[in-house]
Order: sequence, then C-alpha cells, then structure tokens
Amino acid sequence: MAKKPKWVIDKERSGKSAAGESYWLFGIHAVRDALLNPARTKHRLIVTANALARLEGDLGGMAPEIADPRRFPAPLDAGSVHQGAALEVSPLVWGSLNAVCGPKPGESPVVVLLDRVTDPHNVGAILRSAEVFAAGAVIAPARHSAPETGALAKAASGALERQPYLRIRNLGDAIEELKAIGYVVLGFAGEAEAGLETELGNLPPGPLALVLGAEGPGLRQRTRQLCDRLVRIGPAGGFGSLNVSNAAAVGLYAATRASPQNRRVDTG
Amino acid sequence: MAKKPKWVIDKERSGKSAAGESYWLFGIHAVRDALLNPARTKHRLIVTANALARLEGDLGGMAPEIADPRRFPAPLDAGSVHQGAALEVSPLVWGSLNAVCGPKPGESPVVVLLDRVTDPHNVGAILRSAEVFAAGAVIAPARHSAPETGALAKAASGALERQPYLRIRNLGDAIEELKAIGYVVLGFAGEAEAGLETELGNLPPGPLALVLGAEGPGLRQRTRQLCDRLVRIGPAGGFGSLNVSNAAAVGLYAATRASPQNRRVDTG
Repeated sequence: MAKKPKWVIDKERSGKSAAGESYWLFGIHAVRDALLNPARTKHRLIVTANALARLEGDLGGMAPEIADPRRFPAPLDAGSVHQGAALEVSPLVWGSLNAVCGPKPGESPVVVLLDRVTDPHNVGAILRSAEVFAAGAVIAPARHSAPETGALAKAASGALERQPYLRIRNLGDAIEELKAIGYVVLGFAGEAEAGLETELGNLPPGPLALVLGAEGPGLRQRTRQLCDRLVRIGPAGGFGSLNVSNAAAVGLYAATRASPQNRRVDTG
Repeated sequence: MAKKPKWVIDKERSGKSAAGESYWLFGIHAVRDALLNPARTKHRLIVTANALARLEGDLGGMAPEIADPRRFPAPLDAGSVHQGAALEVSPLVWGSLNAVCGPKPGESPVVVLLDRVTDPHNVGAILRSAEVFAAGAVIAPARHSAPETGALAKAASGALERQPYLRIRNLGDAIEELKAIGYVVLGFAGEAEAGLETELGNLPPGPLALVLGAEGPGLRQRTRQLCDRLVRIGPAGGFGSLNVSNAAAVGLYAATRASPQNRRVDTG
C-alpha cells in the first residue's frame, strides 16, 4: 500500500478529532481488548517497546508506532495510566435500538437506561454489571451522558468492547419505543413507595427496562412520567442513597433472579 | 480561652499530620455533615465568605477562618472540588470489633469486610450501600486499604459520618473474631462454584459477614481459607466481573432480602 503524504494523514486526523469521531484508548488491557475486537475501527497504535512485548504479538493488523516512554506522544489527559500503550479508535456501532433490544422468541431481555449519568467511572462500572448479568444493552442519550472515552473504557475493564452501549438521540423517545416492542419500564427513585423486590414479583414475564437517573437530580420529569412504575431500593424511609452504578447492579441482580426461567441468565 | 502562641499551634498541627491523625474534609456537603456530627473531633475550619453563607449558620462550635477564594489555604490535592470549604478532622472512633459488631438479641446483622480495597471511590460507595442496607459495619485493615480522606468522604456522600468504618490490625484475625461471636463468613470469588442466591438460601438465620477482595488479586490466601464458604455473583462460567463496590451492593441486597425477618432491614 502506498504511503499517504503527511498532509493527508494530518488532515484526516484533525477531521476525525474535530467531528468527535475518534478517541484514544489507553492501558495494556483496554488496548489489547480493542485490538482483538474485529468490530473496532482502529486508527493509530502508539506503544513503547516494552508495551509492545506485553501485547503479546496480536495487533489486529495494526502497524505500531514505537514511542519513547519519556515522551509518549498520544494526546491523553494528564494522569492517564497508559502503561505505554494507546490506540486511537472510533466508537463502536451496535445498530438500532430495535435491532439490539428487540426481544427474540423465548427471551425476556433486561436493558438499562441512563438519564444524564455523566461520570465515566459510573458508566464503566454499569457496563461491567450489564455484561455479568447478560443485559441486552446500556442505553443513554448521545448528549449529557458519559461519552465513550479512554477513561470510560478503563472503568469498564473490557466490557466496553463486548457490551452494547447505545447512544440514542432522546431518552424519552427510546422509552416509548421500548414500550412499543413489549418492555415494562421500571424507574428507580428513592422516594418511590413500591420496593424493587415486591414490584418485580408482581411483573409478568417479559422484557424489562431499568431506568436510573443522575445522582442529585434523579430522573427528569418526562422520564418519570414515561416509566410504567417507580421503585426504590432499600427500606422505605431508610437513610442514605446508593451510588448510581451500585443501584444498577442491584437492579440487574434482582431482575435476573426474580424470574430466572424467563430471563437470559440464571444467577445461581 | 487564652490564645495559644503560633509556634504551639504549628507544632500541634505538624504533629497531627506526621502521625496521620488528622485529614481534611472538603466540599460543602462533607464539611456540613462533619460539623453536625458531635462524634467528630474537628481541628480547623477554613471557608470562603460565600461557603460560610452556604453552611447556613451551624458550625458545630467551630470558629471559621475566612479565606480568599483565589488563595484557598487548605492543603488539598490538586483538583479537589472544595467549593470554598475545608475542615481538618480526626478519624472517627467507632469502638472495638466486638462492641460494634456483637449481635444483640433478636438481630442478625450483616457486616462487610474488605481485603486490600484501596480505591477511595469504591470504599466510599460501599459505605453508602452499607448505610442503605443498614449493615453493622464496613471493616478493613488499617494498612493496605483506603484511609479516611477527603476523597473517600466525598465518595461516601455523608455515609462516612454515620456508617461505622472500622480499621482493624489484621483482617484474618477479625474474621476469626467474628466467627467466634456467631458470624457465618461468605467470601466472594468469581470462580466459586456456589451461587450467592443459592448459598444464602441454605444459611440458617444469624449474623453474616461478606468478604470482598481487591480487583485483580481477589481474596488473599489466608482470607479465603478462613471464609466458611466462597460464593460467586452472576452465572457460572459467565463473562466479565463486577466492580468491587457493585459486588458489595449486590451482596448486601441479597443478604438483607434472603431472610428479611432475620436481618435488620426489610428491603421491600
């Protein structure tokens, strides 16, 4: 393949960056997981000689740019623990809400919707829980929620490569679309009267969507109105509140164990 | 009260810092919660005029030092979102393991033990979950786990003031002590054969300890050997792993709902 002139490469790079179409993964594990993911569009791989050895050979067809560890050239945030490995990638494309979340015969998938959860550590942890409990997808608006970034990928500990993370235009519209294809939608709210456990026990088998809001503001008004039911975790009138990723993990655990014969996973 | 000479104050301060006996809380919420906690030993309160107004008057008897927001003098880490409020405090003293965790008649408390969990965000989130599910205590070794710091307090979102966080000398010894006073000890391990749900269903009523390890290494050898049983969350042979605070939240939820009549809280 003929080598592109430097000005073409620079133009392509600046174009991708300006459009927000690419971002940098960093750290041995995140870079390795992405290299091994055939669905990932990869742009540049920058590694130190030491990191190259740790990647153990399979670079998914990428030609590595070997970097001096004292002047690591990838444009990462200060404090990013890159371990000498960085990979510029495009966000994963999972397909439409209907294609990803449409229930197949005999399955009762669970999905998680996030209403303006912006902390990448929380979203990363939620992707991990979604993978463990075999959730169909984590769904969040394209704006006002944590974008795919290297920090999110690191918090997701590999789950970002495997667990559908759908960025949709409007959360309310997505809830309506899910209801139209058979989902029951449970919103989590600390002041709700119904307990999660009780409410799940009352549900018929079928697809289930769990909706969680940002800490502090919680669910927005339209989101609350669109939910079929609001539920709380923990005792009525209890103290404190759960971190949002902890609430998602409890919700996923409870949903998959409430009627395991109807969900995709038996949690044992 | 006569004012102390400056050299006495400086000597006391450096002594406290050198011995690790004090640390700085920051942010309006964390500072307010600590000011209102009579069990807190407080040393210095530094606030901007604006933050002083937001604290709404009750300073728990502390004389505030008013600071210029452009030169905020509290020794905080860069990037700490202090909102103009910082409070130097001593760690809370909760009492002995036996005094805090000894089961009272008719109660079946749940406690959480952490084996070298060092991330303050995870420990803070675990303290929040422990409060929501009315756990008796979160217990961690004095060394090799997240110390009480301003960052931990912020992640704990108030729970640090209310939820016992016991720092003990040796985790294995603490497990043996808990077993001696009637606790059944469940260790969490991804490769365990027994599922959490099934195992909890097999347990007699009584005090319960959940033990979680650091991500990556998991439980240390002696910790594993001292646990009565090892359990996994999620399906056997499933993919991925939970963030440690997510695992703790699921464990607490499952433990308090497995036999709610025997635990301290009915999660509904």
